[in-house]
Amino acid sequence: MENQEKLDKIVIPELDAVLGKKFKVLDDGFVRVVDYMGGDESIVQAARVSYGKGTKKVSEDRGLIRYLLRNHHTTPFEMCEIKLHVRVPMDAWRQWIRHRTANVNEYSTRYSIAIDASQKTGIDEWRIQAQDNKQGSEGFFGNEEGSKLSQRESELQNFAREIYQERLAVGVAREQARKDLPLSTYTEAYWKIDLHNLLHFLVLRMDQHAQFEIRSYANVIGNEIVNRWCPIAWEAFKDYIMNSKSFTGLELQLLKLIIQGNKDEIVKAAESFGWLKRTEKGLSRNRERIEFEDKLEFLGLNKPW
Amino acid sequence: MENQEKLDKIVIPELDAVLGKKFKVLDDGFVRVVDYMGGDESIVQAARVSYGKGTKKVSEDRGLIRYLLRNHHTTPFEMCEIKLHVRVPMDAWRQWIRHRTANVNEYSTRYSIAIDASQKTGIDEWRIQAQDNKQGSEGFFGNEEGSKLSQRESELQNFAREIYQERLAVGVAREQARKDLPLSTYTEAYWKIDLHNLLHFLVLRMDQHAQFEIRSYANVIGNEIVNRWCPIAWEAFKDYIMNSKSFTGLELQLLKLIIQGNKDEIVKAAESFGWLKRTEKGLSRNRERIEFEDKLEFLGLNKPW
Amino acid sequence: MENQEKLDKIVIPELDAVLGKKFKVLDDGFVRVVDYMGGDESIVQAARVSYGKGTKKVSEDRGLIRYLLRNHHTTPFEMCEIKLHVRVPMDAWRQWIRHRTANVNEYSTRYSIAIDASQKTGIDEWRIQAQDNKQGSEGFFGNEEGSKLSQRESELQNFAREIYQERLAVGVAREQARKDLPLSTYTEAYWKIDLHNLLHFLVLRMDQHAQFEIRSYANVIGNEIVNRWCPIAWEAFKDYIMNSKSFTGLELQLLKLIIQGNKDEIVKAAESFGWLKRTEKGLSRNRERIEFEDKLEFLGLNKPW
Amino acid sequence: MENQEKLDKIVIPELDAVLGKKFKVLDDGFVRVVDYMGGDESIVQAARVSYGKGTKKVSEDRGLIRYLLRNHHTTPFEMCEIKLHVRVPMDAWRQWIRHRTANVNEYSTRYSIAIDASQKTGIDEWRIQAQDNKQGSEGFFGNEEGSKLSQRESELQNFAREIYQERLAVGVAREQARKDLPLSTYTEAYWKIDLHNLLHFLVLRMDQHAQFEIRSYANVIGNEIVNRWCPIAWEAFKDYIMNSKSFTGLELQLLKLIIQGNKDEIVKAAESFGWLKRTEKGLSRNRERIEFEDKLEFLGLNKPW
Repeated sequence: MENQEKLDKIVIPELDAVLGKKFKVLDDGFVRVVDYMGGDESIVQAARVSYGKGTKKVSEDRGLIRYLLRNHHTTPFEMCEIKLHVRVPMDAWRQWIRHRTANVNEYSTRYSIAIDASQKTGIDEWRIQAQDNKQGSEGFFGNEEGSKLSQRESELQNFAREIYQERLAVGVAREQARKDLPLSTYTEAYWKIDLHNLLHFLVLRMDQHAQFEIRSYANVIGNEIVNRWCPIAWEAFKDYIMNSKSFTGLELQLLKLIIQGNKDEIVKAAESFGWLKRTEKGLSRNRERIEFEDKLEFLGLNKPW
Repeated sequence: MENQEKLDKIVIPELDAVLGKKFKVLDDGFVRVVDYMGGDESIVQAARVSYGKGTKKVSEDRGLIRYLLRNHHTTPFEMCEIKLHVRVPMDAWRQWIRHRTANVNEYSTRYSIAIDASQKTGIDEWRIQAQDNKQGSEGFFGNEEGSKLSQRESELQNFAREIYQERLAVGVAREQARKDLPLSTYTEAYWKIDLHNLLHFLVLRMDQHAQFEIRSYANVIGNEIVNRWCPIAWEAFKDYIMNSKSFTGLELQLLKLIIQGNKDEIVKAAESFGWLKRTEKGLSRNRERIEFEDKLEFLGLNKPW
Repeated sequence: MENQEKLDKIVIPELDAVLGKKFKVLDDGFVRVVDYMGGDESIVQAARVSYGKGTKKVSEDRGLIRYLLRNHHTTPFEMCEIKLHVRVPMDAWRQWIRHRTANVNEYSTRYSIAIDASQKTGIDEWRIQAQDNKQGSEGFFGNEEGSKLSQRESELQNFAREIYQERLAVGVAREQARKDLPLSTYTEAYWKIDLHNLLHFLVLRMDQHAQFEIRSYANVIGNEIVNRWCPIAWEAFKDYIMNSKSFTGLELQLLKLIIQGNKDEIVKAAESFGWLKRTEKGLSRNRERIEFEDKLEFLGLNKPW
Repeated sequence: MENQEKLDKIVIPELDAVLGKKFKVLDDGFVRVVDYMGGDESIVQAARVSYGKGTKKVSEDRGLIRYLLRNHHTTPFEMCEIKLHVRVPMDAWRQWIRHRTANVNEYSTRYSIAIDASQKTGIDEWRIQAQDNKQGSEGFFGNEEGSKLSQRESELQNFAREIYQERLAVGVAREQARKDLPLSTYTEAYWKIDLHNLLHFLVLRMDQHAQFEIRSYANVIGNEIVNRWCPIAWEAFKDYIMNSKSFTGLELQLLKLIIQGNKDEIVKAAESFGWLKRTEKGLSRNRERIEFEDKLEFLGLNKPW
C-alpha cells in the first residue's frame, strides 16, 4: 500500500493531447474525451492495495496488468474512469444506452429544439439483409438501387423535419412536437464509464456481429481513445479478450480426440451430442457443430465427419 | 428469523386475478403483469431477519411496513420483484429505459419487422408549449388546429411506413431499414424490477412534471398493479412519499419565524438568502422564493413580503 | 453544448492541496484522496448538455447547481468522481460496503498478512445501550467501568493476535488463519464513487442515527473533502438535504389545521390516523405521532392534544 | 410475443419440493430457498419477445437456452429471480457481499444480540499455506498439529464470547459490544439475485481458486438449487462456462503452429512473446507460458520447447 503523504494526479499526456478533439464517426457524429481519471498506473496502484507494505514489487507493471486482465481480476480496472461527449443517431443510441453501468446526461428534446441533423446513408452504403443471420447484413446494393434509396430517405427526412418545424411554429409543446422525429435524428450526450465496463462495452460492440453504426463508434473509442489512455491494458485486452477463442466442454472433448486421431470415438461423441443428425441432403443444420467447425478451420484442422 | 423447515411461495390472489390482463395505455399501448415474487408479507419477512429469534413481534405488519418506508429502510422493499410486459411508443421508452436498475428484454427491430403501429394524437390532444416551463405544456389546441395537426401527423406516419416497406421489399437489411422510423413507433418489452426501485420510478414518473405519455403508464402501474400487489406498501407510499412535502433548511428557518409572527426577522432572513431582489417592476423572479411561496399557500399562510 | 475543440481537465487547487494527505479518523484510521475527476464546474457542464447551442446562460452556476440538487436532477452530479484510500475497522467496513454503487479494491488478508492494528476503545469511549432505540446508544460509562472494559478489550485483542501469529508460524494458510480475527481489525481499501452516490452515502452515514464509527468517517469525507472539492454542491447539499425536513401527507393535513387553529378538526384527524389511542397511563406510544410532535417542537408549535 | 390475455405464474415443482429446506454447509451454516420467480421457461419467454408474432417457433426450448448462454445473450437469464436465506461465517460473507448485483437483508448485530455460533475447524480441516500461490492452500495438517490448532481456536472463540457477554451484561451498546467478535461468527441474510448474476457468482465461487468456505456454499447453490430450478440452463452452464477453456490470441497462434507441426516457428513465436527467457537453471518462470502448458497437457499435447 502506498504510504507517502503526497500524491499527484495521474496525467496521461497522450490523452491530454486529444482532449476535446472530435473524432468523426458516420456522416455527422463524433466522440471526444471530456475528462478522465487514472490510467495504466492506477490499475497497478489499486491491485497493489492487496499486497500490503511487506510485499516487494515482484512483477513489472505490464506483467501485472496482463495477469489481472487474463484472470478476470476486474476490480482494478474499475479504478480508471473516462467521460466522453458523443453525437450519435438515436437508433444507435437506443442500443448504446442498454449498457446500464455508465452515467449519462443526454441532450433534451423536451427542453430544447431537436438537433437539426439526421444520419444520411450514402448511395453505396445500403446493406442487403443477410440470409443466414436474421439480424445481420451482407454486401451492399449497387449504385442504381442505392441512389433510389438515398433519394427516398432524403424525402422522408425532409418531410419529418418540415412537420416538426410546423408544430413548433404553431406552438405545440416541444415534448410532443418531437414525437415523430425519425430514429436517424442525432442526439448528443455526456457518457461516463469506468475502464472495466468500457472494455465490456467494446468487446460486445466491436464484435463483427454488432451493427455497423455502433461498431463504428466502438472502434473509434477503442483504437483512438483507450489505446492512448491505457496502452498496456488495451494491448492485453486485444491479446486476451478480443483475439481469444473459447472452447466449450463439448468442444474440448472432441478436440482432444481429434488431436489423438481417434476418428471412431470422435464421431461417436459428436453423435452423442446430437450434432450429426442427417437428412437426405446430408448433415442437418446444427449451430453448435457449425461453430465448432469454424474453430477447427481456424486451427487448420479438417472436419472429422 | 423464521425457522420452520417448510415455506410456501407467497401468493397474492388480487394480483393473480389480473395476471396477463392488458391494461390499456394511450391509443395502442398496454401494461400487463407477467409474473411476480413476494408481496407485503415478504417486506415484513425480510425486515424481521434483523430481529433474530429472541425478538417478539412488537408491531403488526402494517405498522412495520409504514415505519420502514417512512424512515427510508429500503432494502426490505427490494425483496419483492415484478415482471411486466409493456407496449410503449419509442419516445416514451427512451425516458423509461434511463432507469438503470431494471432487467429488460426488448422487441428487436434488427431481428424482426418493426411493430406496425405508431402512437396517434387525437385532435383534442395537441398540447401547447408552456411559457414558464421550458420542458412542459399547458392547455390544448382547439379542434380546428388539432385537426390539421393530426392530419399532418397521419401523413408523416404513413409516409414513414411506406418508405420502411419499400426498403424491406427490395431487401434492405432490417437493421438499416428501420433507421428512419418515427419515435412514435410502438415497441414492446419485458421489464422486471424490484419494488423499491419501482416506487422510485413511480415517484418520478407519476409526478406532474413528468411527460403525459410516461405518466400515463406510471399511473396504471401504480394504481392498477402495485395497488393490488402490495396494498399496504402502496398506501404508505402515497402517505409518506407522494403526498409529502420537503422543506429545505432555509425554508424551515423562515417557517419558524412566520409561526412566531416575527415579520422583521422574516424579511431580513429572506433578504440574506438573496430571495428579495427588486427591479422596478417589483420582486425579481427567484425560483427558490416561488417554491416556498407555493408551500406557504398550500399551508394556508400568506406571503410575508 | 460546448463546442470548442480544445478542453482542459478540470482541476481543483483546494483539493490538489490535500491530495494524499491522511485525515485521521478513530484511533488508527484515515481517509485520503487519491484522485478525482471534475468539480462544481462539471456539474454545470453536464447540465448544460440539455440546453443546446441556442440557449443563453440564464442562470449563474451556483443557482443552477442549487436548482438541480433541490429538484432531484441527480445525473449531473454523477459526472464527478472521486477515489479515496481509507483505513477502517472491519466492523465499520461491513456497513460501508453495503453501498453497492462504488468501486472497491480492498486489502487482501488472503494474499497478505492482516494489518496489525485493531480499533481500541478509550476508557471514556464506552457507550451505554439506548433504552428507547434498540440500535442506538446514549451516554458513556464512567472511568472505572470504562477502564475495566478497555482492559478486557486489550486482553482479547492480544490473544486474538497471538493465535493468528501462532497459526502463521506453523504454516496455516493465510486464508484460514484469519478466520478468528476480531471485527475491530483494520482493513484498507481504495473506494471510488461518483458525487451523487457519495452524497447519498453521506446523508445516511452523517445522520445522527448512524453508528458513531462510520459517522466519524462520513463527517471527515463531507467536511474535509467534498467541502474542498465541490464547495457549491456541498453548500446546496447542506441547505436542501441535510438540514431539510419532510412532512408526510398526514402531517401536512394536521399542520394546515394547526395553522388555521382548528382544534376540533385536528384531534378528529389525528384520531382517524390512529395516533391518539389511550391507555390508563395516557396516550399510548405511537411512532408516527411522536415523530410529528418532534417536528412541531422544532417549529415552535405546541402539541394540539 | 405472447398474446393471450391470461398467464399463469411459472411453477417449478422440483424446487417447490425443497422450499424452506435447509441445505447444510460447513459446521453450522445453511442455504435454503425462500422464494423464486420463473425458471427455464421464462428464459425462453423473454428471448421470444425479440421475435414478434410472425416468427415461427424454429428451435425447441433447450436449443434456444443453450444458444443464448453460449453466445452471451445474458438478458433473458436476468428474467429469473431467486431469494435465498443463508447462514454464513462473517469471513466468507465479506467475500460474498462483494457481488454488488444482489439484494440483501442481513441480520443486525446492532439491533439484536449476535448469533451465538462461530465456525469451528475440525482437527483434520486445517489447511497448509500453498507455496506457489500466495492466496491458496494445499494439503492438510496431521491430527496432532490439527488438534492443537482446534484447541486454541476453541479457547479464542470462548474468550471472545465471554467478553461479548460481559459487555452486554454491564449495558454496553450492542453496536459497540460486537466490535471484537471473531470473523468466524455466523451471520444470516436474505439474498436475492437474478439467474444471470447468480451464474456469474457461481463461476467465480465454484472455481478451484475460490476459498474452500465460500466454494462450499457455491457448490450447494449450484448443484442442489439451480440444478432443480433451471435444469436446462444449469446443464448449458456446465457445458459452456464451467467446463470451457479460453485460449488467448497468443495461445491460438502457438496452437495453430503446433497442429501444423512447425517446430521452428513455434519457438520463434514463443520467444517473441517473451515466454522462453532462460536462467542457468532452465526456463525462467513465466505465468503465461505455464498456463498454456497446462492447456496443452489437458489436450494431450507435448510442450514444444
